[in-house]
Amino acid sequence: MLTLHPQVVSGYVGNKIAVFVLQSLGCDVAALNTVQFSNHTGYRQWTGTKVSAQEITDLYNGLRQSYLDDFDMMLSGYIPGAEAVVAVGNIAKELKEKTQGTPGKFFWVLDPVMGDNGKIYVAEDVVPAYKSLVPYADLILPNQFEAELLSDVKIVDMETLNQAIQALHDRYRISHVVITSVKLSSPDHPADHLSVVGSSMTSSGKARLFKIVFPAIDCYFCGTGDMFGALTTMRMREAVEKVPGLSQRPNWLSDDNTPVLELPLAKAIEKVLASMHEVLSKTRDGMAAVVEHTRATMTDDDKSDETKAHFVKTKAAELQLVRNLDCLRIPAVEFKAKAI
Amino acid sequence: MLTLHPQVVSGYVGNKIAVFVLQSLGCDVAALNTVQFSNHTGYRQWTGTKVSAQEITDLYNGLRQSYLDDFDMMLSGYIPGAEAVVAVGNIAKELKEKTQGTPGKFFWVLDPVMGDNGKIYVAEDVVPAYKSLVPYADLILPNQFEAELLSDVKIVDMETLNQAIQALHDRYRISHVVITSVKLSSPDHPADHLSVVGSSMTSSGKARLFKIVFPAIDCYFCGTGDMFGALTTMRMREAVEKVPGLSQRPNWLSDDNTPVLELPLAKAIEKVLASMHEVLSKTRDGMAAVVEHTRATMTDDDKSDETKAHFVKTKAAELQLVRNLDCLRIPAVEFKAKAI
Repeated sequence: MLTLHPQVVSGYVGNKIAVFVLQSLGCDVAALNTVQFSNHTGYRQWTGTKVSAQEITDLYNGLRQSYLDDFDMMLSGYIPGAEAVVAVGNIAKELKEKTQGTPGKFFWVLDPVMGDNGKIYVAEDVVPAYKSLVPYADLILPNQFEAELLSDVKIVDMETLNQAIQALHDRYRISHVVITSVKLSSPDHPADHLSVVGSSMTSSGKARLFKIVFPAIDCYFCGTGDMFGALTTMRMREAVEKVPGLSQRPNWLSDDNTPVLELPLAKAIEKVLASMHEVLSKTRDGMAAVVEHTRATMTDDDKSDETKAHFVKTKAAELQLVRNLDCLRIPAVEFKAKAI
Repeated sequence: MLTLHPQVVSGYVGNKIAVFVLQSLGCDVAALNTVQFSNHTGYRQWTGTKVSAQEITDLYNGLRQSYLDDFDMMLSGYIPGAEAVVAVGNIAKELKEKTQGTPGKFFWVLDPVMGDNGKIYVAEDVVPAYKSLVPYADLILPNQFEAELLSDVKIVDMETLNQAIQALHDRYRISHVVITSVKLSSPDHPADHLSVVGSSMTSSGKARLFKIVFPAIDCYFCGTGDMFGALTTMRMREAVEKVPGLSQRPNWLSDDNTPVLELPLAKAIEKVLASMHEVLSKTRDGMAAVVEHTRATMTDDDKSDETKAHFVKTKAAELQLVRNLDCLRIPAVEFKAKAI
């Protein structure tokens, strides 16, 4: 398994999450850090450096020359800049090419990190760079806005959401799609709930759609997308391995007669959301203690400074992963997928 | 907890080991990577870049400005170059200074990585840089050769080894010392065994020496020192916390009347060696399978190439940590310390 993400010294986003999640679920992971920052950008201040496209390529070449490139899966998250996106794409293409004679031997989970809530937060040329890479991926994990960017379908209700997913299958021949945190209101769930909608296409490229509804937690966490990606990668493999022969089929695509709710992707996401909900709930419950602990080290002036209060709040919202290992490994909560 | 080590994309040395070990034992860890290489240097080829002294300082300043520098412990391993050693030392000094009014609040475990088996493998100016930092550390983990470099005592038998440790306590006022993999033959253990010798000084600076003998595993592993350091850091804290009030005493130094075998350091190292022995044994037992798996991807020409055979062998000797989590958490083997 190869994971490419940013890295932070303190706190949890990118590879700091992905590596721990993948290792916790028993996976030996090679981790290529696309940046090293002191902390995530949600603090609104940070130090550190980005890794250049050339350095990413060099690191991968270093792996290949010593037979360290025998990856069965690759997970990529935020990548700094279009050139670096291309460099990461080239790694995936090479790995795919290498296993051409053995279908299913390599599977790329791509989180096309470009923006959220209607705003692009990467350089403009990153969007076309991702568009040209999606056909090489096996599973993509856009949020609602990124799905709009990739599909050119404006998502305003469940119908347009389904159209967007079908457009992704059609345009990119991408086998598996999950749209994370869909924020559409729907008559089938309460207003304070969110949903995830996914699809594994049929052999003729038709979407097979499922939806999982889960309660929202009213707090702004960073890194949830990275946790979602890492958990999905592991749970997808696990679910695929339970179906005889499926892991040797191109793109791990299930038989056309597989019921939607039996799709490995649907099974995987059920488990992923259970872990997510448990970790986020425990993080929220632990926030007050972190605030108190941090404020104990501050002067009275600092305590009443609003900017500084933001740092403290952001620190308190860092995902509490390490102490909640069992939530990752054996989540107890249950969310069930529904066919659409 | 702050850990400063090199990082590799593939395989296990430096922070790739330290972060996993610390997290596995329940610790939220901030990890500052002092390099990012494709793989460890034991392969004799690698790609990647070192982090400069300035970047190390910048990353730390980034933590401080957002109240992310509330560390109770720091663990430092290989640092690239004297300037970077000084930068890391400055971080430790600042953290120590900050907690001056609260003894025991900050504890620095320093692995003064300089060389092994009679050879210095760092730049010459790194040695004096480390010598000037040791007085600020709480526990140092030199190997036999590094202990010679720091103490200026040539270690040829158990007596000179003990003299070297006393010299370290005397010269640097360093509270706790562990000399890892002592390769002296001794009448009290078989020739295929190694030993670790440690000491926590008394209030007057007198060494309290203990020794733990364990069977050697006839294989060259990389990263054992980093695993030892991370395990020792966690087990030391755990052992200290079991003694009422000790974690509030300067340098976690035990009462003068504490029996040697009751020293938290001795208790800690017993557990560390148990974990080490289990992980190394399991890694050795799994090596043949890794060799076979890697050779399956090679051409016949490559298989008969000696240089390439070295890569395969080195890959097979990568520590198998992830799949042996329980060896880290709840080791079963027991090695008992003896007072010297």
